[in-house]
Amino acid sequence: MSQGKLDPASIPNDGLTTRQRRMIPITAVHTGPGKGKSTAAFGMAMRAWNQGMNIGVFQFVKSAKWKVGEEAVMRRLGELHEATDEGGPVQWHKMGEGWSWSRKKGSEEDHAAAAAEGWAEIKRRIENEEHDFYVLDEFTYPIKWGWIDVDDVVETLANRPGRQHIVMTGRDADPKLVEVADLVTEMTKIKHPMDVGRKGQKGIEW
Amino acid sequence: MSQGKLDPASIPNDGLTTRQRRMIPITAVHTGPGKGKSTAAFGMAMRAWNQGMNIGVFQFVKSAKWKVGEEAVMRRLGELHEATDEGGPVQWHKMGEGWSWSRKKGSEEDHAAAAAEGWAEIKRRIENEEHDFYVLDEFTYPIKWGWIDVDDVVETLANRPGRQHIVMTGRDADPKLVEVADLVTEMTKIKHPMDVGRKGQKGIEW
Repeated sequence: MSQGKLDPASIPNDGLTTRQRRMIPITAVHTGPGKGKSTAAFGMAMRAWNQGMNIGVFQFVKSAKWKVGEEAVMRRLGELHEATDEGGPVQWHKMGEGWSWSRKKGSEEDHAAAAAEGWAEIKRRIENEEHDFYVLDEFTYPIKWGWIDVDDVVETLANRPGRQHIVMTGRDADPKLVEVADLVTEMTKIKHPMDVGRKGQKGIEW
Repeated sequence: MSQGKLDPASIPNDGLTTRQRRMIPITAVHTGPGKGKSTAAFGMAMRAWNQGMNIGVFQFVKSAKWKVGEEAVMRRLGELHEATDEGGPVQWHKMGEGWSWSRKKGSEEDHAAAAAEGWAEIKRRIENEEHDFYVLDEFTYPIKWGWIDVDDVVETLANRPGRQHIVMTGRDADPKLVEVADLVTEMTKIKHPMDVGRKGQKGIEW
């Protein structure tokens, strides 16, 4: 089967067959100051859902207002899976209102602890291979602010078992994250309606 | 209601109220050599669907293989709308297999004519306000190759009636498209698994 425009430029001399190389899980980072970092990650999750993958979304943000559209649709796709076995299961966890698995609700004062708790849970899930596709949304910020140890993240990602795909989003990705990732895209803002005084629009911005 | 991080940097002196400014339809371009241009556009479409918008997707590509996941999910969301009135209606049209509204099937020989025909139909729909949210996927290429007149596109977009949002994707966007757009994002490839000889993966690349 022809791979068309996605043919690799060169075949590496790494002793792996194409099939083995295909089984390597993707580690992706969407960074840069432009729009579309999270939106593209949720678009990828939509595609992974369609392949029957088990999706886990983890939002490292105070308020998830700007992602309500994606959340509604991804949750709806998860319900479809429950009802009809189409696609895969979907879990959507938010730090902002206290992680759903955590007993510490409303701990808004201590974002650092909440972020560390989120990462500890994700690490546990990765070690147990609980999801096939992880979206770690706005994950670069708690790393940047020192709330999550980037070396721990890199080691966990580099040594993870099985075939778990991981997409991380946020500006100013740590160089170590870029180093461990194999798909890194920078979104650059060329022009934005906010620049000319227009506010976010329902259905467009959130 | 606070707009948080999406507050405009400055309020323009254009005589419009914030509400009037909010009603201006978005014209977006996702360009650049990186990944995520189309994926982010479909993520936006997912969000627009959730707001009940009428979605029209037009793919200016020969083979739509790489978008089957998005297509499956968007079509499924369209079916959900038909069945339960959730979200909005979805139409997905592909040039590659002959536009669905066209009688000229299998006209693979004449891509230029097929592209021009696609644009003529989109222009007609824009004039009739048939959709709320248009994805013109890989639309920059037929423009680049001279198959679609960029001045006609710019004039149509600039003078379109009502509140129709339009997102265009593809590399090397014509400067006139960038000029008429108010949201332009460039996706830059920092690192890609194809660079190290890995092929596209099911559920990730398509």
